[in-house]
Amino acid sequence: MSDTSVFPDPVYRDTVLAPLFEGVKAHYARHMDSINRAHLVMLVETGILTRGLGAQIAAALDAIGKQTDVAALSYTGEHEDYFFLVEAELRRRLGDPGGALHTARSRNDMDHTLFRMELRARAEAALTLMLDLAAALTDKAEAEAETLIVAYTHGQPAQPTTFGHYLAAAIEVLLRDATRLSAAIDGLEHCPMGAAAITTSGFPVDRVRMADLLGFESPQVNSYGCIASVDYVTGLYSALKLVFVHLGRVVQDMAFWSSFEVGQLYVPDSLVQISSIMPQKRNPVPIEHMRHLASVTAGRCDMIVNTMHNTPFTDMNDSEGEVQQAGYAAFGSGGRMLALLTAFLPACGVRADRVAANMDAACVTITELADTLVRDEGLSFRQAHEIAADTARAVIAMEAPLRDGHAAFAEAFETRAGRRTALDAAAFRTAVAPETFVARRDRLGGPAPAALAAALADSRTALGALRTGSGARTTRRASAEQALATAFASLTEV
Amino acid sequence: MSDTSVFPDPVYRDTVLAPLFEGVKAHYARHMDSINRAHLVMLVETGILTRGLGAQIAAALDAIGKQTDVAALSYTGEHEDYFFLVEAELRRRLGDPGGALHTARSRNDMDHTLFRMELRARAEAALTLMLDLAAALTDKAEAEAETLIVAYTHGQPAQPTTFGHYLAAAIEVLLRDATRLSAAIDGLEHCPMGAAAITTSGFPVDRVRMADLLGFESPQVNSYGCIASVDYVTGLYSALKLVFVHLGRVVQDMAFWSSFEVGQLYVPDSLVQISSIMPQKRNPVPIEHMRHLASVTAGRCDMIVNTMHNTPFTDMNDSEGEVQQAGYAAFGSGGRMLALLTAFLPACGVRADRVAANMDAACVTITELADTLVRDEGLSFRQAHEIAADTARAVIAMEAPLRDGHAAFAEAFETRAGRRTALDAAAFRTAVAPETFVARRDRLGGPAPAALAAALADSRTALGALRTGSGARTTRRASAEQALATAFASLTEV
Amino acid sequence: MSDTSVFPDPVYRDTVLAPLFEGVKAHYARHMDSINRAHLVMLVETGILTRGLGAQIAAALDAIGKQTDVAALSYTGEHEDYFFLVEAELRRRLGDPGGALHTARSRNDMDHTLFRMELRARAEAALTLMLDLAAALTDKAEAEAETLIVAYTHGQPAQPTTFGHYLAAAIEVLLRDATRLSAAIDGLEHCPMGAAAITTSGFPVDRVRMADLLGFESPQVNSYGCIASVDYVTGLYSALKLVFVHLGRVVQDMAFWSSFEVGQLYVPDSLVQISSIMPQKRNPVPIEHMRHLASVTAGRCDMIVNTMHNTPFTDMNDSEGEVQQAGYAAFGSGGRMLALLTAFLPACGVRADRVAANMDAACVTITELADTLVRDEGLSFRQAHEIAADTARAVIAMEAPLRDGHAAFAEAFETRAGRRTALDAAAFRTAVAPETFVARRDRLGGPAPAALAAALADSRTALGALRTGSGARTTRRASAEQALATAFASLTEV
Amino acid sequence: MSDTSVFPDPVYRDTVLAPLFEGVKAHYARHMDSINRAHLVMLVETGILTRGLGAQIAAALDAIGKQTDVAALSYTGEHEDYFFLVEAELRRRLGDPGGALHTARSRNDMDHTLFRMELRARAEAALTLMLDLAAALTDKAEAEAETLIVAYTHGQPAQPTTFGHYLAAAIEVLLRDATRLSAAIDGLEHCPMGAAAITTSGFPVDRVRMADLLGFESPQVNSYGCIASVDYVTGLYSALKLVFVHLGRVVQDMAFWSSFEVGQLYVPDSLVQISSIMPQKRNPVPIEHMRHLASVTAGRCDMIVNTMHNTPFTDMNDSEGEVQQAGYAAFGSGGRMLALLTAFLPACGVRADRVAANMDAACVTITELADTLVRDEGLSFRQAHEIAADTARAVIAMEAPLRDGHAAFAEAFETRAGRRTALDAAAFRTAVAPETFVARRDRLGGPAPAALAAALADSRTALGALRTGSGARTTRRASAEQALATAFASLTEV
Repeated sequence: MSDTSVFPDPVYRDTVLAPLFEGVKAHYARHMDSINRAHLVMLVETGILTRGLGAQIAAALDAIGKQTDVAALSYTGEHEDYFFLVEAELRRRLGDPGGALHTARSRNDMDHTLFRMELRARAEAALTLMLDLAAALTDKAEAEAETLIVAYTHGQPAQPTTFGHYLAAAIEVLLRDATRLSAAIDGLEHCPMGAAAITTSGFPVDRVRMADLLGFESPQVNSYGCIASVDYVTGLYSALKLVFVHLGRVVQDMAFWSSFEVGQLYVPDSLVQISSIMPQKRNPVPIEHMRHLASVTAGRCDMIVNTMHNTPFTDMNDSEGEVQQAGYAAFGSGGRMLALLTAFLPACGVRADRVAANMDAACVTITELADTLVRDEGLSFRQAHEIAADTARAVIAMEAPLRDGHAAFAEAFETRAGRRTALDAAAFRTAVAPETFVARRDRLGGPAPAALAAALADSRTALGALRTGSGARTTRRASAEQALATAFASLTEV
Repeated sequence: MSDTSVFPDPVYRDTVLAPLFEGVKAHYARHMDSINRAHLVMLVETGILTRGLGAQIAAALDAIGKQTDVAALSYTGEHEDYFFLVEAELRRRLGDPGGALHTARSRNDMDHTLFRMELRARAEAALTLMLDLAAALTDKAEAEAETLIVAYTHGQPAQPTTFGHYLAAAIEVLLRDATRLSAAIDGLEHCPMGAAAITTSGFPVDRVRMADLLGFESPQVNSYGCIASVDYVTGLYSALKLVFVHLGRVVQDMAFWSSFEVGQLYVPDSLVQISSIMPQKRNPVPIEHMRHLASVTAGRCDMIVNTMHNTPFTDMNDSEGEVQQAGYAAFGSGGRMLALLTAFLPACGVRADRVAANMDAACVTITELADTLVRDEGLSFRQAHEIAADTARAVIAMEAPLRDGHAAFAEAFETRAGRRTALDAAAFRTAVAPETFVARRDRLGGPAPAALAAALADSRTALGALRTGSGARTTRRASAEQALATAFASLTEV
Repeated sequence: MSDTSVFPDPVYRDTVLAPLFEGVKAHYARHMDSINRAHLVMLVETGILTRGLGAQIAAALDAIGKQTDVAALSYTGEHEDYFFLVEAELRRRLGDPGGALHTARSRNDMDHTLFRMELRARAEAALTLMLDLAAALTDKAEAEAETLIVAYTHGQPAQPTTFGHYLAAAIEVLLRDATRLSAAIDGLEHCPMGAAAITTSGFPVDRVRMADLLGFESPQVNSYGCIASVDYVTGLYSALKLVFVHLGRVVQDMAFWSSFEVGQLYVPDSLVQISSIMPQKRNPVPIEHMRHLASVTAGRCDMIVNTMHNTPFTDMNDSEGEVQQAGYAAFGSGGRMLALLTAFLPACGVRADRVAANMDAACVTITELADTLVRDEGLSFRQAHEIAADTARAVIAMEAPLRDGHAAFAEAFETRAGRRTALDAAAFRTAVAPETFVARRDRLGGPAPAALAAALADSRTALGALRTGSGARTTRRASAEQALATAFASLTEV
Repeated sequence: MSDTSVFPDPVYRDTVLAPLFEGVKAHYARHMDSINRAHLVMLVETGILTRGLGAQIAAALDAIGKQTDVAALSYTGEHEDYFFLVEAELRRRLGDPGGALHTARSRNDMDHTLFRMELRARAEAALTLMLDLAAALTDKAEAEAETLIVAYTHGQPAQPTTFGHYLAAAIEVLLRDATRLSAAIDGLEHCPMGAAAITTSGFPVDRVRMADLLGFESPQVNSYGCIASVDYVTGLYSALKLVFVHLGRVVQDMAFWSSFEVGQLYVPDSLVQISSIMPQKRNPVPIEHMRHLASVTAGRCDMIVNTMHNTPFTDMNDSEGEVQQAGYAAFGSGGRMLALLTAFLPACGVRADRVAANMDAACVTITELADTLVRDEGLSFRQAHEIAADTARAVIAMEAPLRDGHAAFAEAFETRAGRRTALDAAAFRTAVAPETFVARRDRLGGPAPAALAAALADSRTALGALRTGSGARTTRRASAEQALATAFASLTEV
């Protein structure tokens, strides 16, 4: 079969090679430079290359770096991609020895190394936004520790609790999500360099040194896995998706609470869009934007994970450049959502008037009345329950709040229990007050102040541990950058 | 609750308003301009605005258009968004009458109208790429109508067929996908204008005229649905996803066929990446790129559809600006995949040597031998089957191709049938030749030349009908653009 | 490599073969029987088999059918699957000729034929449920054509409309979804029989006759596509998913409307779960069940479509037995959701007191006041708008409904317009009454009675057309069943 | 609004209540029984109930347990669900005191407790299957430590490695997946009991004791989170999905390796389906079944996670009974896939003849020749590379294996280097032997025996740690069961 065609086909160049080149410029060129430098250091240190050759290459790399404005490059098709462009430039300057930099490595280990470098930076930034959100919510929860709200089940008012207690629940989920994301970042911290194409190299490479110089915790062990496994990607986006599925649920509550009719959440003017003709129509549009940003982020995470479905376990473009870059949009929309929520929730308040009116209308403390009768009047559960129900029915018929129902209560008590209640009107009001309801719920995890304070203190501890873990990774990377600069500089010293 | 905060909160401005503004600049400003012009024409034609006021506004709109470089605008936060910027400019120039343009309409109907305008352009372009692909594959199928290939079941060689026959199968799926996409585009062709905020207007708007001026087939009827229903979006992305799930399956075949060991598909040099040191290692990397482009496109479609999940059926940002724009990436990656496949498949050839060797090794015509014995020798099915199996076993043991197995066949025949076969060596070779196999399968949908030609002719007809439908839509839009320009110009004529 | 292992491995038997056998028993045995009968009829009619042999096989098939209790069979591993069990039984009874039934066909074409037969029954049943829902909603919309409700944008009260108008919007989406599903069912109506393994057969099969006898519209053309294309599956589940994504949005509205605070929707006692102690806590739990049934159904549809991702375009188990069966759960949960919604929505009512209170509090008709001033008082848009806004502010400050704001309005008018308004108190009340608001919106697609009636009439027409299409398919299948029975019976007649 | 309807509506009963009842029978009745017993123990221990009342209720629970055949119950609609059926039975037997068991708890905390109990059992079983698979693969990797295979990049033969090395890569991924799943199981180990409806209870419940008695590690802290957070579900299914996405990639390799043309993997007769007429057509169908089982399992996981999307963060049926049960199908299909893969891979072998032939044809060791020339002949990289390339071209032209290319090599060497090579024919053969290639790659993570042995030892250690963690959980649950039985028995002792 005679074939006179010449690579690259123009359609291939335009649909694949040029877009890839732009992606490398935007995301990977600086990582590739770090890898080049670290690899050269390692080759010289292990004696795979001589000091002299190392110095030559180092000088050329430096010069190329200084003389090339990566952002200004445009794809010509002369070199297959940016990697080959640099290699060609090295050969142009050094002749044959220019090729020696590629000893004992391959595009395969380089690529997955730089993908990890980019992902860890993005993921750490996302984690930091999450931890900032957790801190802001914890502050808010403390500030709103005694702010009553209506808690719902099945979309209907059910019980009093506090805004702080609600937020503490959201914080616990967020910290578990942060823990999952942090574990996923740890999964990025293993360096593929030295795996070469698939099987490591016949040269005595030092994989631990490479990992150190590039700020990784350790080498990724199995060399086949270094270039074939994608769970560093799927594990990360899986963890990221959950963050937004879960935060999206809190957003749904905010939407409901800020509706005109419920009004439990007050969204300040800075975060509502208002109609000039309908002054009372306050559209808390940021809530919708948070919802769709969360949805789109979750969808982008799915896109990446599902792209790996039914691909072979081998070196494949399905986990490389283009797909990697497609995933970054998730960090973009997700980061915006996190920043907006961090500004939004602390700025909101609870409308006590609406909460009180709603609690009155919905008799949300009625179960506590029954419990009180069991505890204080020694009634059986059924009797207590029946008296409470009679009382609820009576106040609802009167359209009165429960606290004004002592007469109805006393009558029901006498009818059912055959005696008069010891609970006078004041005690009754206290028994059915939302504040009492909350104060009595001082069990582990409950809304009473001490219980909540203890839980928030635990959350702060967990948050601190996550900050520490994140800080340690960040420090390791910064130190490695320093160490690499020093080691590389020493290559060209006499 | 005292509230001194001022809209917009800076975080909201940066995370939502500014990105939205950039989106409008990139995608919607020109559609908004068309809507402004069409709406003004309609307001004047129906008498809702006077001719005089209409002329004033038309002149101002013209001037603003000429004096504004949309691409150069940057978001300042002074106006909530681009719409308000234009409105403020109108008021600045005309005073009070500037506001009259917004009579009997709303952001709600405008937004969904311009989303449809943008989507229909993108979707029609995608459909055109699909039809171009279908045309290219049909040409290729005709050119390869007699090119033998091995057809597989369960990943194993099963029967001979032709490359043309295989491609004709892929074309039929593609055309059904195009039909689904075309129906989804038809779903975009109903204009929301006149729905205003939710319920139409108290002014006597002419919704049919608006639809005409903007190139739609008709108004979308129910005005609540105009601003709340999202099936024009979900229906479109659903249909689009399937295109790429299905094409991805053909790509999987190409990957297998072009593997070193199978080698049935020859990918030309212009589309393979080659190692200088391993000259025989020809990596047909475009195949992988097509696979991941298809996967990512499908994932982006899912993202959009799933964003609508559990949103309320009402006007909501979840189906608007940001989400709409997020979806356009699907057209980007999908368009590149279609273009690449259109260049790729026609450029490839079938390696006859590999096909022949594989057919020999795999005895892929053995079932036809049994059928021949039933038809020509009058054997029972079991006898025919046993003789064929004996023959297959014998040639495999000899490592000979089936066509050289006449002696073994004759012996098996005599043993099983108790008589000598009438099939001489030449007739035997003919009976088991792949060419015979194919030629005999001249039923509806089979690979024999006439059957294939008839099927391809049908496909061409279907393709022609799809082109006609697409062309009619395109023409309608172009005519409407012309009509709108004329009608708008007449507003300022004396 | 010596290999003494014997098929089937016990783990394979338990994890794959036995479950598959149960699936065939539950879903496919009766379709396989129809295919056997139709194929035999066709073989005899085309002369591929003699009448005598046909009669023998027909008698045996009849006897096997009568003597086998499929439901009572359990998988023994003796035969690979149910198909081989029947074939073995035929051979046991007839000897060699028993094998003749399998002339000119294959498991491949048989399998995809029976999958289509099962899917079309399930999909038609789902479509029927959808059309029943559409009919019930149309009746309800007519009954509630004048029932005022608050329409929301961004989750906030925006304008008055009617329940009928809202439902009409939902009906239009539902009918478009039904149209998509109906088109997907049409995609099932092409018969693969005659494709045999991949390439049709060397025997003169009559594919059109097979399609007719099995109730299909026509043969699926390309024989390779008959066994390799899966878009009949993906197209169906894609269309089905959208139904539930869209209905789920209506369900979200129902959840909001039936919340304690909004209360616009009254859910009857038969559909709420009540706490004995909190008599006012009426949990409209069916709404949640509809939501998760819709979500799970949509997820099941995705599961099937995504299973096809990155599979080769060839005969593969990924589109066969197990996967097909996994999909049926979508019809189960989806069918329940449709039935529940069909019972739920018509049973619900609108609470006029809540709607009225909400409308008063939210000034939802204020824009109509401005429009009225433009139309009747000849004010500029800006003036009208300012007067309306002044009025709204005044009544909100007074906590009075808008209709009681004539004095405030008159004062604002005089201040802004410099003259007294012609609108007296009664005319003002009329102008701002929700009934007026609705009545004036009699444009195409609006809520005014005539406009709504016209739209509902159109919906009924569309519904009728869908019923007709569904009925025609059902009739074709029933007629085919009859024709097959007759033709098969004639095989054994002398 | 008069409402004479009576709960439950028959459609609601049939579409929701009856299916839920069946689900409780199948999955939850025994957990509910444990919760009842543990709660009663705690109520008596804390003095919330008297010993005497506790003894009465305990006796009744025991009797009900003995007298009720849960499996035989059918849903009548008399009681809303199984919970109320038991409660009614308690009241029937004990009168008023029967209701006391429900003190200080709610359906909300009970439900999420029993969902966790069921999930942890299923997830632990899945994890055990994964660890069994990892153990089987590790044994296999050791057994195949020196079995050469061709390793692929971009679907083309690239380098030699060993089957053991490949499996070790897969094992590392599997163990990381197991670590993720194990962490997700740890997320289930926090007990919601004591959260009651939302906010804990006014009674002095002992949440730690409840957690202990039910075998949890600790209570879930925030009580709102106990009934509202769903990340125990989403975290679990997210982790589970990845297992199958990743194993599916190994399955794709098995599909390719076992194809007729590649033939690197030998699948034994017990696991292939064979055609009687095409004895050489060995369909390794279990591979396809593993692929679709993995796909369907991943899809079922997505379904559950995505069902939570855009639900409110509050007690909701979207995370309860029906949805929980829908998820169990993922464990079913996933468990079958794991069991099949555990049987499949160890049963397969590598066909050394095919591997050798393929290596010869693909010159897969050519890069090692270049490296050797750099190391041993002191050539520059470019020279070494050029000589190797010349040699490859020459042997490919001769259709000879590389090892027979010494003459060509020597000639190329002399031409390029201007001197004769020191590598004689034997040394050349050694240098290009796959065994040499592998032996030289003894770096961390490489295929050389010592490197692989070290990596497998590390994997065994990691596997051991996972087993230990799983064992500790299982032991805790078993001990708790014992402790609960003892404590409960003591309630009825005098």
